Amino acid sequence: MKEARYFYVPDAAAVNELPAEEAVHALRVLRLKEGDELFLMDGEGCFYRAEVALATTKKCIYAIRQTLRQTRAWRGRIHLAIAPTKDMGRMEWMAEKATEVGFDVLSFLDCKFSERKTLRTDRIEKIVISAVKQSRKGWKPAVNPMMSFRSFIEHCPDNGRKYICHCYPEISRADFFSAVSCVSPAVRSSQDRRQTDADTPSSAEDLTVLIGPEGDFSIDEVRLAMAHGFESVTLGNSRLRTETAGLSAVMMSQLARRV
Amino acid sequence: MKEARYFYVPDAAAVNELPAEEAVHALRVLRLKEGDELFLMDGEGCFYRAEVALATTKKCIYAIRQTLRQTRAWRGRIHLAIAPTKDMGRMEWMAEKATEVGFDVLSFLDCKFSERKTLRTDRIEKIVISAVKQSRKGWKPAVNPMMSFRSFIEHCPDNGRKYICHCYPEISRADFFSAVSCVSPAVRSSQDRRQTDADTPSSAEDLTVLIGPEGDFSIDEVRLAMAHGFESVTLGNSRLRTETAGLSAVMMSQLARRV
Repeated sequence: MKEARYFYVPDAAAVNELPAEEAVHALRVLRLKEGDELFLMDGEGCFYRAEVALATTKKCIYAIRQTLRQTRAWRGRIHLAIAPTKDMGRMEWMAEKATEVGFDVLSFLDCKFSERKTLRTDRIEKIVISAVKQSRKGWKPAVNPMMSFRSFIEHCPDNGRKYICHCYPEISRADFFSAVSCVSPAVRSSQDRRQTDADTPSSAEDLTVLIGPEGDFSIDEVRLAMAHGFESVTLGNSRLRTETAGLSAVMMSQLARRV
Repeated sequence: MKEARYFYVPDAAAVNELPAEEAVHALRVLRLKEGDELFLMDGEGCFYRAEVALATTKKCIYAIRQTLRQTRAWRGRIHLAIAPTKDMGRMEWMAEKATEVGFDVLSFLDCKFSERKTLRTDRIEKIVISAVKQSRKGWKPAVNPMMSFRSFIEHCPDNGRKYICHCYPEISRADFFSAVSCVSPAVRSSQDRRQTDADTPSSAEDLTVLIGPEGDFSIDEVRLAMAHGFESVTLGNSRLRTETAGLSAVMMSQLARRV
């Protein structure tokens, strides 16, 4: 069986041409010809079955034959905000794995004990898009530029639940997986109402989770977050590296919210 | 605060000298001197607080001052058997991450659709030991050499529950996380009896989970495993790479069995 050809094309329904990089892959690597079938993903909930209408050396024009609306695989939006590790390779694999597992937003935090103060989000974006295609995700996770911890906390929208994972035993911490697994009655009923409109995530079920740098958040950062409505949590008893903690938080969130 | 120095020393209580590689690290990197404190991990449930008794250019002799018995962080033994990916880097990070999260045994399977037929388990072993030290695990996961799928299935001990993850929709599959989360009354009562002896894992709570190669198990392999008592399961709706599936299976198992 021929492996279906998936291409990431934002606004696929509005344009009729593959973006330059995808066109190179279609024309030079896969050698697609007029009449060949291809699949487009717009990263916003739609796949399209299309056909090559015109193939030149550099351009690949398509015609859409069928719209395939995707259904969301988990309830609410899962937002991971993490202090990037010194070694970028570790952030890159985390971005790939978190995309495969399934989440919605990736933000990067500049914290007091951060060892990395700058980050090329364009590289992360490429890895995320590649993982979206490979794992056939209906929605592309958004990747935000790095911002200061304080600015993130102060501007984080007040939808759903917000959590900060940290290792300070002197601050009482709830278990993260238990916290995200327990859905309040109010949320349940909004979930029932959503049965006919599963594509619109309910903001009451949104969750944001913060993971600190190798040296953890500072205790003042934890207190600031808590003052802004973040719940103090732990991922469990395992001593995890930053990138493993980030992926664990995504896996637990996805597991708790999957439909 | 000085970071505590942890060394992996199998049979730490029976010998009194660091293994060659650990001695180099202690003497040349950390420059430990007589009287300095160090911590030994035997990988079998004990840490030891020790002191350098004699430091030469190549040898580091220690004296144990205190035995620190560790408590198990999850119930039963978690055994992951996986067909290694073509790209060894992907297996290596999975071994590191699974060790951080927590599991007991890693086996490698040679399957019909395997792209990799040989494997240097000594490299994996080194990565596992490094992750055991970094994440301060009381027990070192065992790493087994690669064996044929059939041989593994036929010789897999009959303790606990056994699962095979696959993607064949024509074979009914239970949800893996739900399956491992539900503990039978018989197991619960044996668990209660174990309260005073938490270090001895109960074989009734052991679990073995099989993850196939990039091209999945063959349908005959799935049927063979089922004929030998393996339950047919799925990890969920996400389309995961082999190494991500392996890590997900470990995370779900650990989450379901943590104490």
